[in-house]
Amino acid sequence: MKIGVLGATGFTGEKLVELLSGHSKVELAYLSSRTPRPVAYSEMFPRFQGLVDMPCEHMDVKKAARKCETLFLSLPHTVSMEVAAYLLKQGKKVVDLSADYRIKDPAVYKKYYNTAHKDKNNLKQAVYGLTEFFKEKIKTASLIANPGCYPTGIELALLPLLREKVIDSEIMVSSVSSITGAGRKAKIEYHYDNIADNIWAYKPFVHQHVPEIVYVLETLGKRKVDLTFIPHVAGVAAGIHSTIVVKPAKKMNEKKLFSLYTGYYKKAPFVRIKKCLPSLKEVVNTNFCDIGFSFSPKGKKLVITSCIDNLIKGAAGSAVQNMNVMCGFNETEGLL
Amino acid sequence: MKIGVLGATGFTGEKLVELLSGHSKVELAYLSSRTPRPVAYSEMFPRFQGLVDMPCEHMDVKKAARKCETLFLSLPHTVSMEVAAYLLKQGKKVVDLSADYRIKDPAVYKKYYNTAHKDKNNLKQAVYGLTEFFKEKIKTASLIANPGCYPTGIELALLPLLREKVIDSEIMVSSVSSITGAGRKAKIEYHYDNIADNIWAYKPFVHQHVPEIVYVLETLGKRKVDLTFIPHVAGVAAGIHSTIVVKPAKKMNEKKLFSLYTGYYKKAPFVRIKKCLPSLKEVVNTNFCDIGFSFSPKGKKLVITSCIDNLIKGAAGSAVQNMNVMCGFNETEGLL
Amino acid sequence: MKIGVLGATGFTGEKLVELLSGHSKVELAYLSSRTPRPVAYSEMFPRFQGLVDMPCEHMDVKKAARKCETLFLSLPHTVSMEVAAYLLKQGKKVVDLSADYRIKDPAVYKKYYNTAHKDKNNLKQAVYGLTEFFKEKIKTASLIANPGCYPTGIELALLPLLREKVIDSEIMVSSVSSITGAGRKAKIEYHYDNIADNIWAYKPFVHQHVPEIVYVLETLGKRKVDLTFIPHVAGVAAGIHSTIVVKPAKKMNEKKLFSLYTGYYKKAPFVRIKKCLPSLKEVVNTNFCDIGFSFSPKGKKLVITSCIDNLIKGAAGSAVQNMNVMCGFNETEGLL
Amino acid sequence: MKIGVLGATGFTGEKLVELLSGHSKVELAYLSSRTPRPVAYSEMFPRFQGLVDMPCEHMDVKKAARKCETLFLSLPHTVSMEVAAYLLKQGKKVVDLSADYRIKDPAVYKKYYNTAHKDKNNLKQAVYGLTEFFKEKIKTASLIANPGCYPTGIELALLPLLREKVIDSEIMVSSVSSITGAGRKAKIEYHYDNIADNIWAYKPFVHQHVPEIVYVLETLGKRKVDLTFIPHVAGVAAGIHSTIVVKPAKKMNEKKLFSLYTGYYKKAPFVRIKKCLPSLKEVVNTNFCDIGFSFSPKGKKLVITSCIDNLIKGAAGSAVQNMNVMCGFNETEGLL
Repeated sequence: MKIGVLGATGFTGEKLVELLSGHSKVELAYLSSRTPRPVAYSEMFPRFQGLVDMPCEHMDVKKAARKCETLFLSLPHTVSMEVAAYLLKQGKKVVDLSADYRIKDPAVYKKYYNTAHKDKNNLKQAVYGLTEFFKEKIKTASLIANPGCYPTGIELALLPLLREKVIDSEIMVSSVSSITGAGRKAKIEYHYDNIADNIWAYKPFVHQHVPEIVYVLETLGKRKVDLTFIPHVAGVAAGIHSTIVVKPAKKMNEKKLFSLYTGYYKKAPFVRIKKCLPSLKEVVNTNFCDIGFSFSPKGKKLVITSCIDNLIKGAAGSAVQNMNVMCGFNETEGLL
Repeated sequence: MKIGVLGATGFTGEKLVELLSGHSKVELAYLSSRTPRPVAYSEMFPRFQGLVDMPCEHMDVKKAARKCETLFLSLPHTVSMEVAAYLLKQGKKVVDLSADYRIKDPAVYKKYYNTAHKDKNNLKQAVYGLTEFFKEKIKTASLIANPGCYPTGIELALLPLLREKVIDSEIMVSSVSSITGAGRKAKIEYHYDNIADNIWAYKPFVHQHVPEIVYVLETLGKRKVDLTFIPHVAGVAAGIHSTIVVKPAKKMNEKKLFSLYTGYYKKAPFVRIKKCLPSLKEVVNTNFCDIGFSFSPKGKKLVITSCIDNLIKGAAGSAVQNMNVMCGFNETEGLL
Repeated sequence: MKIGVLGATGFTGEKLVELLSGHSKVELAYLSSRTPRPVAYSEMFPRFQGLVDMPCEHMDVKKAARKCETLFLSLPHTVSMEVAAYLLKQGKKVVDLSADYRIKDPAVYKKYYNTAHKDKNNLKQAVYGLTEFFKEKIKTASLIANPGCYPTGIELALLPLLREKVIDSEIMVSSVSSITGAGRKAKIEYHYDNIADNIWAYKPFVHQHVPEIVYVLETLGKRKVDLTFIPHVAGVAAGIHSTIVVKPAKKMNEKKLFSLYTGYYKKAPFVRIKKCLPSLKEVVNTNFCDIGFSFSPKGKKLVITSCIDNLIKGAAGSAVQNMNVMCGFNETEGLL
Repeated sequence: MKIGVLGATGFTGEKLVELLSGHSKVELAYLSSRTPRPVAYSEMFPRFQGLVDMPCEHMDVKKAARKCETLFLSLPHTVSMEVAAYLLKQGKKVVDLSADYRIKDPAVYKKYYNTAHKDKNNLKQAVYGLTEFFKEKIKTASLIANPGCYPTGIELALLPLLREKVIDSEIMVSSVSSITGAGRKAKIEYHYDNIADNIWAYKPFVHQHVPEIVYVLETLGKRKVDLTFIPHVAGVAAGIHSTIVVKPAKKMNEKKLFSLYTGYYKKAPFVRIKKCLPSLKEVVNTNFCDIGFSFSPKGKKLVITSCIDNLIKGAAGSAVQNMNVMCGFNETEGLL
């Protein structure tokens, strides 16, 4: 199957190219970016020498459509929705890694992304690509709204608990992310000197992923949640570590909770329930989401921690996982 | 003034030696560790060549007492209390950096440190060295129980809010620390490969600093608190970043809160109230505690983040600050 | 093909398990370490949960021989030679990652490893596993002496130049390695705090890899070399960067040298000749050796830099590459 | 004494402000940068809150001259020489941290900095600020050409050997620097993701510091040298580690060389001769230059390694050291 990556030079686009170039069922047929003229991808990113030497071109959506059957859009928010609409009209399958099709309510989208939604038709039919919960819909979808990085690790940790009604609605999340989550940009804030050995909180309560997380938790969990979300940046190479504190709604123990989780994810090849609290590095360079938990001594509080590689399970990896399901390949193809 | 550091080769002890060797009012007169024979301190730690070439000896408490007027104990928990008792009897002043005199209730001490307290007399008179709140008592004290690293940043962030009754009693704290907080030990877990780029939560709810924090918050705050404390280790060179989420008890705004904080700390040279959320690196290698905060859009939640260098404001720096106050030196001497 | 890894818990052993568990032609059948009782490998290394859950046992060479056709020895130097001798007698194929069979002269071995060689017969027939130069011999070998980490990157950079007699015999090499090259050990020197942000030179002139490098360069290069080798440790996650300065023996230009190198390595899937000086990170997590070079303005000096991942191309990756060649698999199987 | 820092927001300028704000004999009276309007320095760099709250203004050389007696120029190369000329005319003392007055030959300057020298008069009288070798001249100077970062560590390691004629003229230097040496710039190459865990060589043989190093070595060493200089960038927070390989001109031993070095530097408070090869981290955050060495087994080669903090001894620290000497303060004031 011929594949295109539009926006192939951001961190996520680069990771997509890496994963897809090693995928046995697909062939990279088109790469684009903002480059004015075509340049060999391996000249842009020397680590791809001998692996991906094809050109990366200035984005030409018609050409992309001519050359590819399935396209990954790793484009800025608000740009994706114009490109996706065209490609879908040409009968292509699209995995969109922007936020453009994640939030079903255009008013909420506008509030968080400062732009009116331009493709409300496709917005309705887009399938949210949290593979573990939407696999059946993904199989027949032509447009996947790939989940945000923070939402992935948080939703996978919380959905079994919410659906089984074993926790209260008040949810406190403190997440720590690699700076790669902010995209490949030449900003002084992203200078090595400012990131190494540093940690800080940003956009507390109002991060743009909040409505996505709340929408998914409430829709799938079938009740209101009261989410407090405090994201942080830290000087780590990759990954997101989320610490989630909730109150059990009923008396539970670790054994029961472990079996609740493993039951939920028994057919999910990329979710691992751990016997202790996971450490971030164990998932870096993998498509796994690791989840662990612990009760407070009297059982009145429960902490769940989850770890993902923000560019893999949090973006490019889950996008490939979704393509695998949508196109009928083995779900783990190219990812294990 | 002649000074001794007992336990001079741990991370905290080394930082004490660094700070004290640059302090204009004191002279290092005795350094000890587990070393079987005396070795030049600068041979143990080559970075001290030309700065601290005096020997570090196997601990001899009597000799320490003979040579010094004031002693810093950077010894393992449960060892300190034997040494401190002797030194106090000889009329020495002691700053104890272990946990041995922090917790006033021997039963709680026993629960968390697995040992019966052996020096209950001095336990009663020991002054908790949170300088910003106990300065008057420190001036006349002879035994300082230097606060734990996590407690320092958390207590300074919360005490003004609790004392002014502007927040509810439910407190959620997620802290991230450098591994140096665990002490200088040859453990495979502390290997570079396991720490770099890694983050994980440990001892959720039950960390040994919980009773210290709760005791101080409740005693000074004059009411019960419901503390959830989730500590983490991350691959950062130094420091502790704490993220604290609470619920305002009354309607407040950022301006009022800023002025509440700055009012409380107007005579505290090492607490800085920031106009935005502080980043960890700004306090590394300093004795500052930086505090910032932000309300949720509807004002129902409040996040406060605080940053300290865990080995300085969280240990050796505050110990020197306490010595300065106790011995009548300028509070900032050797620290700015 | 059934595979065993003896010494599966060091950094190299762990990387072998990682690579072999994703190799389509082999099956891990035996893992051993110093563990007193069998423990699930994924319990020892949680990142392998769901990937390698089989037990890791206390080393039992007979059992290893019964269960496996090919064995990787990731054992300490001087231990390997006893184990290898037995396995070879049982008709097994062995890839030895220790230094025991790399140095053909037992007197030199004794000088650098402080032990008499105990398996001189197999020492003679062992094939040095620099795949790019010994492929034909490896095809029929039963014992591979896998090259050392520093030697791999240095030899691949220098051999084409020496064989084509385009450089003088005086060779200056300054290499920088990740601390993982020193093995997984609980030493205070390997503590995060001592490695992060640090660089130092060690064992200048006399590192145990010097005789290996000199032997290979002289044997394949067919003349004496005067090697100066200064290894360093730096706080990087992985890899070895080598900077080699030589004097051209004849007038050359960059174009000719580029074509000399690419000619030599046109059938070497893991050697990449770069148009500029390579950076270490481009080879991390790969089996590539990247080589770049630059002449001084008047052409009297030539610098060549080479980069490898020390645990992959410098150890486990080249070991798998050698197994692939020895066992008739595609050379890149499991490595691309 | 009133002090100004022109170019106060680069890495070097920031370090100057840090050091000068803690210096007991001087008062910061003027800070400038490219900022269009005055902004509190502590607003630009929050870590200076409470320490340096004065404004940083758009550079106005006349105002700087009115307010200050001594000025530090941390300006881009080629800009400094215009500013310095004016300030000197006003009778000010100037420490220039750019390269503009380091190279005595205007033709060489032009070759490496692509601009004709505009202030040849002052170029002649500028004193090269390698304090350890030019202290007497510095005492009466009004313009200091502060040495480059690489030159400092290399010259201090080599000058005693060259002056005592104990080594040959062929000198091989491989240096590794923190990226902070390249200045605070918003470049994608300086992004955390590109620097962390990375190492690469750049500008081999032709780095702009080569003529400075050669000029100083030849002038003070009184003979020609044949220098090969290969600089590298590595993902370390701070510092430069230089590895220097030379050939002894006569039979020497370690004891003699140690005493040669310590003799040379017995009055140099910031040069430390080490008994083993120094590690970079020992000098970070200090003004020390640490030097160690080792002979090859047969004594035919000698390796010297030197470490400095590139922003302190390699820039701002030595600038303060030079000011101390030039203005009659204690040489170590503000630096120990």
